[in-house]
Amino acid sequence: MSERLFNFSAGPATLPPEVIEEAREGLRSLGGGVGVLECSHRGPEYSAVHEDAEARLRALTGADDEWELLFLQGGASTQFLCVPMNLGANGDYVVTGTWAQSAFAECEKLGAAHLAASSEETGFDRIPGSLDLRDDADFVHVTSNNTIYGTQWREMPATTAPLVCDASSDILSGPLGLDRFGLVYAGAQKNLGPAGVTLVLVRKELVARAPASLPTMLAYRTHAAKKSLFNTPPTFSIYVVGLVAKWLQDQGGVEAMAARNEAKAQRLYDAIDAHDLYRGHAQAGHRSRMNVTFHLTDDALTAPFLAGATRRGLVGLKGHRSVGGCRASIYNAMPPEGVDALVAYMQEFAAERG
Amino acid sequence: MSERLFNFSAGPATLPPEVIEEAREGLRSLGGGVGVLECSHRGPEYSAVHEDAEARLRALTGADDEWELLFLQGGASTQFLCVPMNLGANGDYVVTGTWAQSAFAECEKLGAAHLAASSEETGFDRIPGSLDLRDDADFVHVTSNNTIYGTQWREMPATTAPLVCDASSDILSGPLGLDRFGLVYAGAQKNLGPAGVTLVLVRKELVARAPASLPTMLAYRTHAAKKSLFNTPPTFSIYVVGLVAKWLQDQGGVEAMAARNEAKAQRLYDAIDAHDLYRGHAQAGHRSRMNVTFHLTDDALTAPFLAGATRRGLVGLKGHRSVGGCRASIYNAMPPEGVDALVAYMQEFAAERG
Repeated sequence: MSERLFNFSAGPATLPPEVIEEAREGLRSLGGGVGVLECSHRGPEYSAVHEDAEARLRALTGADDEWELLFLQGGASTQFLCVPMNLGANGDYVVTGTWAQSAFAECEKLGAAHLAASSEETGFDRIPGSLDLRDDADFVHVTSNNTIYGTQWREMPATTAPLVCDASSDILSGPLGLDRFGLVYAGAQKNLGPAGVTLVLVRKELVARAPASLPTMLAYRTHAAKKSLFNTPPTFSIYVVGLVAKWLQDQGGVEAMAARNEAKAQRLYDAIDAHDLYRGHAQAGHRSRMNVTFHLTDDALTAPFLAGATRRGLVGLKGHRSVGGCRASIYNAMPPEGVDALVAYMQEFAAERG
Repeated sequence: MSERLFNFSAGPATLPPEVIEEAREGLRSLGGGVGVLECSHRGPEYSAVHEDAEARLRALTGADDEWELLFLQGGASTQFLCVPMNLGANGDYVVTGTWAQSAFAECEKLGAAHLAASSEETGFDRIPGSLDLRDDADFVHVTSNNTIYGTQWREMPATTAPLVCDASSDILSGPLGLDRFGLVYAGAQKNLGPAGVTLVLVRKELVARAPASLPTMLAYRTHAAKKSLFNTPPTFSIYVVGLVAKWLQDQGGVEAMAARNEAKAQRLYDAIDAHDLYRGHAQAGHRSRMNVTFHLTDDALTAPFLAGATRRGLVGLKGHRSVGGCRASIYNAMPPEGVDALVAYMQEFAAERG
């Protein structure tokens, strides 16, 4: 494998090389001679890391002091239960894929979940147009980007109840527009950093909703009161998230990243649409800028396509088993050169079989 | 600071330098050109890491196929609620320190916790002798080593109900004697690796106890059924835990480590007992081999003692605020040379003031 490797994995996913190199230094020392894995979470070295990561994420998300910014554990899957446990289990869910389904099922287990809309009928190839929302719902839950099916909301729905968003696979891929939301959560391992930490942005007024009987570690207020230091946080994951946030700011922030991501996705979708050999999974107008899902029209070509890609150093392109085909995850940290290399390969592969 | 730095932090804590260096390589590549933070948790590179870590921990703990070995998130604090939620909330608790108190309080919140014994009266300076255990309890909960107060169980109590142990601060410091337990859990950041992953060993028969209504992510059975890959695990933390386990095996395993730890602790306690300037917190016979807590008899000397230690490269020695004084955490990864350096400093400090 002589060419540069580009990793299109859906998550854990590629990170900026500069971040990896800085993390390698951090493993040896954070400056005071003790490495980041070995620092007390109560000491000055880690405190600086923790506060820096929070400040950068507040700047990038626009979370002012009406918002709590929490670093939690357990992935988005744990938020599936924490949201109804803290906000009330009478939620409206828009089901746009596998993860939305799991979030809905968890609320059903805990209370009175209501299906506001679903695109399951058409293989989750779109975001539903009309939503059956209830004014007295405790919240409305959406999944902003559907990693597996490759669809993404273009505009968030207007809701009476607080809007809750699982933004695991597109957070910070562009301006978040936090005003529209009551709570946003995201597992870090796609756009924010490594696995092991989940970012939760929640309005202070919603933090107060949780019943006092809620188990300590499941209540947002526990972590809000201690700035995510109630117990030992996943210090290394938070450290790398801070490095990624710094990198993102150095790239020009979320606006610059949105333009770059839009261009990357467009080049890939153009390549898909230009050749009969390829067929996109998501409907036009619903296509994700983060996870580009497509099939080889002749499915017998999928295996040779993927094998040839790997030989070129283009890895992680196999589609999720529930969709099949191919998926190119092109999060913030995937450089335009990676997309160019994939597009070149797709054109070549098509030309050879044209 | 010209001398080698020794980090006596209570956790996150010092790790073997060989582990740090290997982790630095892993950040660049796990062998296939993709770094450990960027590998899919479903791909072959990470699968090998995950299985290797599990196999080594099974060898070191003696967990055979009657046991589930789980890598979970949320720290020991999350186990405080998962234990009663999965096993039944009618537990007997032996309260030997701050963490045991928190575990007890969490079970009280969920059901009918019973205080089997407490050493709070004497400042948690010992392990209680007689326990008021109930035959019909769902489990008996103990904390094998008390990080803050520096006490440690010498022999586990005989119980009718399954014995549950928070072993966060002494796991793998010696043979675990798993036969006596029904469930053992440990946050990794003291003796196992970095923060962000919690090891749970639980008998298969106990996994089955949980009610079907339990939220998905809180049920041990969810994670047991998927080998801790139900959702994205904290891959880097598990990777480093695997490296630490390999290092431990290379050192001769838990028996060799027990002898080394016993000798390290003895040298420190001897230094404490040899000088009137120092006074141990824990009662003789209850002293921890992991966290050596002591006071300067004249508390005005504590600050200069700690400042001098820092100048010598002996860091992280400040006692927990609830005990005061000093604490030397000498987990597996603290080399005997670190303890020797501390003992030499203590002798010198005492001689100057003798």
